[in-house]
Amino acid sequence: MKISDFPVSYQAYGELNEDKSNAILVCHALTGDQFLAEPHPLTGKEGWWENMVGPGKAIDTGRYFVICVNILGGCMGTIGPRDINPETGTPWGLDFPVITIADMVRCQALVIDHLGIEKLFSVIGGSMGGMQALEWASMYPDRLWTAIPIASAALHTAQNIAFHEVGRQAIMADPDWCGGDYLNQGKKPVKGLAVARMAAHITYLSDQALHRKFGRRLQERDTLAYGFDADFQVESYLRHQGITFVDRFDANSYLYITRAMDYFDLAAKHGGELANAFKDSKVRFCVISFTGDWLYTTEGNRRIVHALNSVAANVSFAEIESDQGHDAFLLDEPDFERVLKGFLDGAEEIRAAETGQD
Amino acid sequence: MKISDFPVSYQAYGELNEDKSNAILVCHALTGDQFLAEPHPLTGKEGWWENMVGPGKAIDTGRYFVICVNILGGCMGTIGPRDINPETGTPWGLDFPVITIADMVRCQALVIDHLGIEKLFSVIGGSMGGMQALEWASMYPDRLWTAIPIASAALHTAQNIAFHEVGRQAIMADPDWCGGDYLNQGKKPVKGLAVARMAAHITYLSDQALHRKFGRRLQERDTLAYGFDADFQVESYLRHQGITFVDRFDANSYLYITRAMDYFDLAAKHGGELANAFKDSKVRFCVISFTGDWLYTTEGNRRIVHALNSVAANVSFAEIESDQGHDAFLLDEPDFERVLKGFLDGAEEIRAAETGQD
Repeated sequence: MKISDFPVSYQAYGELNEDKSNAILVCHALTGDQFLAEPHPLTGKEGWWENMVGPGKAIDTGRYFVICVNILGGCMGTIGPRDINPETGTPWGLDFPVITIADMVRCQALVIDHLGIEKLFSVIGGSMGGMQALEWASMYPDRLWTAIPIASAALHTAQNIAFHEVGRQAIMADPDWCGGDYLNQGKKPVKGLAVARMAAHITYLSDQALHRKFGRRLQERDTLAYGFDADFQVESYLRHQGITFVDRFDANSYLYITRAMDYFDLAAKHGGELANAFKDSKVRFCVISFTGDWLYTTEGNRRIVHALNSVAANVSFAEIESDQGHDAFLLDEPDFERVLKGFLDGAEEIRAAETGQD
Repeated sequence: MKISDFPVSYQAYGELNEDKSNAILVCHALTGDQFLAEPHPLTGKEGWWENMVGPGKAIDTGRYFVICVNILGGCMGTIGPRDINPETGTPWGLDFPVITIADMVRCQALVIDHLGIEKLFSVIGGSMGGMQALEWASMYPDRLWTAIPIASAALHTAQNIAFHEVGRQAIMADPDWCGGDYLNQGKKPVKGLAVARMAAHITYLSDQALHRKFGRRLQERDTLAYGFDADFQVESYLRHQGITFVDRFDANSYLYITRAMDYFDLAAKHGGELANAFKDSKVRFCVISFTGDWLYTTEGNRRIVHALNSVAANVSFAEIESDQGHDAFLLDEPDFERVLKGFLDGAEEIRAAETGQD
């Protein structure tokens, strides 16, 4: 199954300089989108990386031209299963081709071509965005100077797959999913998608973060209600996460993107040796993990670093002390910001020395 | 809301001795039941603790009279939400009173009364069974010599509550749940209950155990199918866990029991000080945790031990090295069996010395 002539949406911040050498591609995560440094058009909430990207910030839009592409299979403008299949005139649904992280990267490369950018200064991404950064370095090593995979993984573990499978089963269990055909039938599997989001959301936070945020505090009451309403704040919070998610996300997109993540196994694509993905690479890597991240652990990130080391790639590794869990990459983490900014500054100096560019 | 004159089911193994001093109460976990040492009447599978309970085993039915009571709110004979409300003549459904771990313990005490047993030699339980063991020691300190909470907790954390809430929402999202009235309407929320079971099941296993058991191995195929069938063995396994569970468990029971666990907070019942639950207790405790258990962690178990220490209670603590996750207490763990048997043997000697009994 091939798709062609499809729409791709992206946002860009800052100015592309004359020699097109200051472009940074930021790759978004599973439920992210291209609106990283401006209010979200559907929710009105601030962009998902406004703390990191902007004038004078760690990823300084006063210096860099920052591009973020809605991923292939997404639901914020780039083609995905909710779009119209030109052959049938109705939404693709499950006829949409199953996609991979590599497909997302190919799609981003088309945008970079379109912008006339030969070589990105950096490809940066957290979580699934980091998978894309790794895939970029592997597929197009000559098209990026640096790659910064953050709180990411070179493959999905059995536990990662298991959590995604629960989410998918929750969606598919919803009769309003209609075998994937809900758009044609005027339905929307909001309950199933909300449950999927709730299950996933737990994995984004550490036990400690949940304890600090909520503990066993009660929701707008003084004593236990002894019933099935949201007695505890954490229940109310999770329900809210589920309910608000369905307003901005397409259930089939969720299926396709989680599947792409489950299929991700960079070593398997390279004869079972992760190192082979980066052989002779001139890309400078900065791998970043968070101590409190139990979804994509430091251990898994360190395996990426070891693979890079084993082919003498140029790699920095930073494990950031944080008990916020996987979502730390989206949150205010001063050490993390310092590492990212420091790496970009250093890489720019090195590039200037190597190329005479500045 | 009060219930009275209700059925309670239990199984017993071994012989109660003449002075009724050799009785051990085993408390089962969330989805367990009284069939711990014999094939399950519905599934035909071996009892959930056959490796531990039987003639010559760690809990030796040649020496002990082992009782296991189906918990209040359960669905294997003891009254629960699927039973008939005598006032209406139809199943209780959500009119069944919300229950607590303490209610389960009160119900077990009625059985122990009925058997004419004044003092149990031990109350033993894993997971939710351990909560009951702690509650027993707290409520009826003079009715047990020893308490052995295993892989348990003195309270449900925010993360624990969150996982349960996902399961409950999955059940309630199923239209066949019918607002809890499915039995009266000839329906059964099998899909929602299966998703709940899948989500919970992930928390019972460690990341390492899932990796060892399944890794990224494919299910009955050589290459990825690129679709939404169960490509990976771990998906197929989880789906199987979900599908088989619904044949033996009632969805409303699942709601009530998870709720009882969420409400469990032994310290809160005692002025916020866990130690107060065990003040002046003569019960001998053996607290057991497993290194790979991320649901009820060693850290949480150690807090129980510290509380016991702080009131000079008699407590042993064993952290068993295992990477099997929370379910280790159900699996073949020789060190665990040795600890349990050793503690029971030792406690029996001490009791004999104290009472002249043997």
